[in-house]
Amino acid sequence: MKLNAEGFSNKNVIISGGLGFIGSNLAIKLVDCGAVVTIIDSLIPEYGGNLWNIEPVKDKVKINISDVRDEHSIQHLIQGQDYFFNLAGQTSHLDSMNNPFIDLEINSKAQLSILEACKKYNPGIRIIFASTRQLYGKPQYLPVDEKHPLFPVDVNGINKLSGEWYHIVYNNIYDIKTSILRLTNTFGPRMRIKDARQTFLGIWIKNLIEDKPITIYGDGSQIRDYNYIDDVVDAFLTVAASDQCNGSIFNLGNDQPISLLTTAELMIEENHAGNYDFKPFPSDLKKIDIGDFYSDFSKIKNILGWSPQVSIRDGMKETIDYFRNNYQHYI
Amino acid sequence: MKLNAEGFSNKNVIISGGLGFIGSNLAIKLVDCGAVVTIIDSLIPEYGGNLWNIEPVKDKVKINISDVRDEHSIQHLIQGQDYFFNLAGQTSHLDSMNNPFIDLEINSKAQLSILEACKKYNPGIRIIFASTRQLYGKPQYLPVDEKHPLFPVDVNGINKLSGEWYHIVYNNIYDIKTSILRLTNTFGPRMRIKDARQTFLGIWIKNLIEDKPITIYGDGSQIRDYNYIDDVVDAFLTVAASDQCNGSIFNLGNDQPISLLTTAELMIEENHAGNYDFKPFPSDLKKIDIGDFYSDFSKIKNILGWSPQVSIRDGMKETIDYFRNNYQHYI
Repeated sequence: MKLNAEGFSNKNVIISGGLGFIGSNLAIKLVDCGAVVTIIDSLIPEYGGNLWNIEPVKDKVKINISDVRDEHSIQHLIQGQDYFFNLAGQTSHLDSMNNPFIDLEINSKAQLSILEACKKYNPGIRIIFASTRQLYGKPQYLPVDEKHPLFPVDVNGINKLSGEWYHIVYNNIYDIKTSILRLTNTFGPRMRIKDARQTFLGIWIKNLIEDKPITIYGDGSQIRDYNYIDDVVDAFLTVAASDQCNGSIFNLGNDQPISLLTTAELMIEENHAGNYDFKPFPSDLKKIDIGDFYSDFSKIKNILGWSPQVSIRDGMKETIDYFRNNYQHYI
Repeated sequence: MKLNAEGFSNKNVIISGGLGFIGSNLAIKLVDCGAVVTIIDSLIPEYGGNLWNIEPVKDKVKINISDVRDEHSIQHLIQGQDYFFNLAGQTSHLDSMNNPFIDLEINSKAQLSILEACKKYNPGIRIIFASTRQLYGKPQYLPVDEKHPLFPVDVNGINKLSGEWYHIVYNNIYDIKTSILRLTNTFGPRMRIKDARQTFLGIWIKNLIEDKPITIYGDGSQIRDYNYIDDVVDAFLTVAASDQCNGSIFNLGNDQPISLLTTAELMIEENHAGNYDFKPFPSDLKKIDIGDFYSDFSKIKNILGWSPQVSIRDGMKETIDYFRNNYQHYI
């Protein structure tokens, strides 16, 4: 896959959740491509936003601290933008069950208000929305392609689903150009490692660095697929740069899924130290657990030529290195 | 299908949207079964609530005028209830595009707050939620069964989808007993006929009674299935009375779908007068139109023995008679 980076030169780009894990990596890459980047981030402490994430480009981006629930802020900021990478979201499945209305306001209602704002103030904008494989629920078959039935198992999955579908309907009815990426477990530098709110890999990395054992829920046989952040950033840019993706939904994924146990062992090898233990699933997590998962990403591969380029091992090495060097900014 | 009406004797039953079309017919039937019925209705003028609808039982039900968005009202009213027929909703597809936030508040957020209220104040309640075939969008095959992919084509479909799925998730995670009925075009006495907000059949009936021509959008070849209200009421009660429906979704439908033109001709015959004309789809309706639709209801037929008992012709005769005799209360 060759990304035409020049396509973003001097383009006005806005990134919601731009201080978060994926948003900040996207911002850094887009600055590198010559884009004029505006970041929106709420900096809600429990979420992924972290000013250190954009340290390499902090003087080259505009940072606007506001919440996607703040419709007036959004209405102002989207004007004149060419691209909107819409990444802000509440990502914790457990939080969505404990505070379902907050999850609804961010993942569902704010998405509707973003789209209404675009319809009124910038109908020519191109939006790429970060969705999640969580919408599929417990897989009925593997690998899971985009035609797999949607079967969200928690409030987060339902609200992400409606947030996603508002994008599709506004594309189809109002010609607001939108595309969806359904992400699986993304990892890499700048992810949240304080806890498991983004993915369990975060807390695993923190524990490794702190010489604490990794805790594996279950027997470690559960299968997951992972994408390294650079590949995910490339997917966002590739979809944004294409004219054939309007109203389309694409899975990301990895055709080399591995078990949790193998993941832990690989991470310990790349860390050159560490150990793990097993614990039964906590009951609240067990109820919303989806079992084995890996996705079929042949749609984006066939249409846009995207496939993951970085191995889990190489990506994990980079990630651990990053967090060893930047540990104090992430705990 | 034999309904065990005695099962509802002395049971406490609450019906949201209970002054509306389906809710009021359900209330009348439940009073007949000996239930203690509380009706919640917002009486929003553009919706289906109409005090005349419960004229036959007005002294035998408790009427509470409030909105499902009013969480405190709901928290109070659900306490001590055995069954909750959850029918209140914003039903207009066009309204959902013009006022998407109102649609979200009623069809999505209020459903979440109802379920949270039940979780806290009445976790033993049994909820039956009225959903819609609109969630399937434009059929990928006919007849449409419950496994058909969900593909809402408008904001209403998306919000109904999340409202429906909150019910399923609260069943699966918190053991709140919920079941879903996905309704197709329901018609009969007490429907809204002022306009096409519930179904186009409403305005057709009004026009027939007023000796005005029925307007058919398109060429009349579009296929629809219809259920007469008594059959739909029976479906709600049958599902409520069963212990095997928790967390289940059932289509209603009719295995004798007919074209719009045939529908118009049949209605004119039963009315013994009338005529029709054809008009192109208005552009806003055309964009969210789903083409031919009829559903496969074999799941509810096989599990619970439900199938429609009233022919469209007989039902339409009853309906036209009702509105001739009660016209002044519905315009």
